[in-house]
Amino acid sequence: MAVKGVVHDALPVRDIAQSGAAPTLRKADLHASVRDPVLETMTFLNEVTYRYPDAISFAPGRPYDGFFDIEQIFGHLRRYLDHEAGQGRTPEQLRTLMYQYGPVAGQIREIIADSLREDERIDVPAESIVVTVGAQEAMLLVLRALVTGPEDAFLVSSPCFMGITGAARLLDIPVTPVAESEDGFSRAALEAAIAKERSRGRRPRAFYVIPDHSNPSGATMSLRARAELLDCAARHDILVVEDSPYRLVSPGPPLPTLKVLDKDRRVVHLGSFAKTVFPGARLGFVVADQPVVDDAGRTTLLADELAKIKSMVTVNTPALSQAVVAGTLLAANGRLSELNARAAVHYDAAMRLTLRHLDQCLPAARRAALGVRWNRPAGGFFLGVRVPFRADNAALARSAEDFGVIWTPMHYFHPDGGGLDELRLSISYVTPADIAEGVARLARFIEAQSEPS
Amino acid sequence: MAVKGVVHDALPVRDIAQSGAAPTLRKADLHASVRDPVLETMTFLNEVTYRYPDAISFAPGRPYDGFFDIEQIFGHLRRYLDHEAGQGRTPEQLRTLMYQYGPVAGQIREIIADSLREDERIDVPAESIVVTVGAQEAMLLVLRALVTGPEDAFLVSSPCFMGITGAARLLDIPVTPVAESEDGFSRAALEAAIAKERSRGRRPRAFYVIPDHSNPSGATMSLRARAELLDCAARHDILVVEDSPYRLVSPGPPLPTLKVLDKDRRVVHLGSFAKTVFPGARLGFVVADQPVVDDAGRTTLLADELAKIKSMVTVNTPALSQAVVAGTLLAANGRLSELNARAAVHYDAAMRLTLRHLDQCLPAARRAALGVRWNRPAGGFFLGVRVPFRADNAALARSAEDFGVIWTPMHYFHPDGGGLDELRLSISYVTPADIAEGVARLARFIEAQSEPS
Repeated sequence: MAVKGVVHDALPVRDIAQSGAAPTLRKADLHASVRDPVLETMTFLNEVTYRYPDAISFAPGRPYDGFFDIEQIFGHLRRYLDHEAGQGRTPEQLRTLMYQYGPVAGQIREIIADSLREDERIDVPAESIVVTVGAQEAMLLVLRALVTGPEDAFLVSSPCFMGITGAARLLDIPVTPVAESEDGFSRAALEAAIAKERSRGRRPRAFYVIPDHSNPSGATMSLRARAELLDCAARHDILVVEDSPYRLVSPGPPLPTLKVLDKDRRVVHLGSFAKTVFPGARLGFVVADQPVVDDAGRTTLLADELAKIKSMVTVNTPALSQAVVAGTLLAANGRLSELNARAAVHYDAAMRLTLRHLDQCLPAARRAALGVRWNRPAGGFFLGVRVPFRADNAALARSAEDFGVIWTPMHYFHPDGGGLDELRLSISYVTPADIAEGVARLARFIEAQSEPS
Repeated sequence: MAVKGVVHDALPVRDIAQSGAAPTLRKADLHASVRDPVLETMTFLNEVTYRYPDAISFAPGRPYDGFFDIEQIFGHLRRYLDHEAGQGRTPEQLRTLMYQYGPVAGQIREIIADSLREDERIDVPAESIVVTVGAQEAMLLVLRALVTGPEDAFLVSSPCFMGITGAARLLDIPVTPVAESEDGFSRAALEAAIAKERSRGRRPRAFYVIPDHSNPSGATMSLRARAELLDCAARHDILVVEDSPYRLVSPGPPLPTLKVLDKDRRVVHLGSFAKTVFPGARLGFVVADQPVVDDAGRTTLLADELAKIKSMVTVNTPALSQAVVAGTLLAANGRLSELNARAAVHYDAAMRLTLRHLDQCLPAARRAALGVRWNRPAGGFFLGVRVPFRADNAALARSAEDFGVIWTPMHYFHPDGGGLDELRLSISYVTPADIAEGVARLARFIEAQSEPS
């Protein structure tokens, strides 16, 4: 390091006329996305969580990590390398595969395609897949590709996952909320939204939805609702963006994906390994098998166009993340459902326990009198509780301070405001003992808050 | 899988009224970034490379990977885990660290801060660092934060790395090119560009530059040029975005970074491990220690605001990539320069060999007669060769087909057109034998192409 010192000491510092005072940037002069109201509220939620460390929190939607084992990482990586060697790759090729810049669209697309066939009967060519840094990056790519300017509308089921609204805000895209019904989809609401956008001269491009155990509502679309959605999309010539992070976190066979029901290649399917085998790998993907035709008549896939955008976002997804997730999938012949079976039982038990304690602490007659109700998701991480008071930040602060229980205001998830009479509970990251005590605390808070003051 | 079959077979398919024909998307209806001229030209370059597999290519700017060894990955990961255990983390905490969603701004910021102090004498708090998926994501974050709309101008040194212009196009940001001089910076050009933007009512926010062994020109800014740039930035109240991927790919002490010369916290410094210890990890970072003040007078760092944007792009950088790069840095007490010493010697030899063969094949008198010249970078991956003919795609195709040598047209890197009289040679991924033969072929191509036709 001494040599470097010489260079530094030799600086003609007299030539560097600076004030020594940092320029002060005004937050108002930064892009609006840093003042995203969702981010501001999440900051508030984090602060509450930090200030009341003894409160039981039903806020975090993170997956349970008790079944993971660090030593497995080494094994998964080795399995992937052995697999690639078995495919005939030389040691030099393996080295390049792991260490070098890789293909923009990903290096484990065949393995993901196999997994989709095994688990979901989704049968798509590997070329229609782009591997992404979490489904979050996939959302950004899809939004960017489909929305060219203010004349394009992007519709989202509301209440809505913050990731898609955040990515839209980053791109200055105002999303169009479509109110969700109890079973996760309202055809009337979607058609009204499409008609309204058309009447304003805008072109509805796509509708984003989480059909299974949605975040935040916990709703799952019925088979009929799925069929209606696909029919509606075909009639109105829009794409459906299906996000699927919570499909395999519950035991038993889920309903078919929109993608497998889709005969028209009208569904862009987003997948994620972040809620199952390896959150920290940040691995997701998008299936985009829609043909795209340019002015010269040449055809590509939407996946090819998404990959071009990805080359400007992250260039390619880290080889290590791809390798470890692929190695994990290979351990079960691609059956993510099998790999996640134990965790699925865990989440299922947590959801049932939460619902049972809610029923005990706020029995039917009592909750009817109070005007409280909740949905009963068959699985997943989330449920919604309607309450007869404003479930806002002030209520959250009181809940944490006076009752020792934390939840997420549902209005955080409403792009158009609303949702102030509801709170989201997440059961994915809370222990059985904490569920019992936490629900009791929540019931006391709801009772106290619901009384006429 | 049989159970799932039952569900699928029970579908009320009669309700799913779809045509069975895929909707055809028009490429013209997708965002302009997928029609990025740079991407189109890169596609052409890839096609040429594919069509002429026996041609020697000076096109790829990828790092040499011959010194990597796959088994080291396991060791680096283990070293990081041992390090974290040594910091007092329990096995459960280690598990969470690796498997769970991590902090948006990164989990190895202290280790990167230590490395910057060791290698670069850049002394910044870990809180001013955001770990990103390659420096590419960092560029996107910085562009997004600083450019709020058409009233903001973002200046780039031209010719310019495609990553920054691509990210800008993705965000619908038109960059303002500032012509680079022989030593990498022209104060007159920067001041003229700033004045022009101001006269148009726009607010110049920042100037992007690669001071060391720039991509594509190979230019390195002198110490005086660095001082002038900082002075100019202070006078005109703009930020400087310093990208530094090629700093440690050459032997010997580099000139000080702009960041270390910066007394005003006016420099946003981008770093990357993609050209040194681990390209496939896709790990980069941004140092943004500028204070940001909101309307209520609260102060954050620009890094905090960049992290908010990152939460909408990739959420957080994969733990695996962070762990393996951190483990690598820990092997040398943070000295990236030491870890890359062997590769630096390799690149240095390749650059000298290329220059020597150019001198032999096109001696001074001959190249003067032809009107050919090139710069003589002291290191890095790239050099530029000026030629007396249009170095466009047609010339590239002829060069590959008739002479068996491939290069990159410099005009790909000019945001405002221009650069048609220059080609870029990359020496990073070509063997010594191929350098000798490739330069001989290139000289024959230049001779043939320069003759009056």
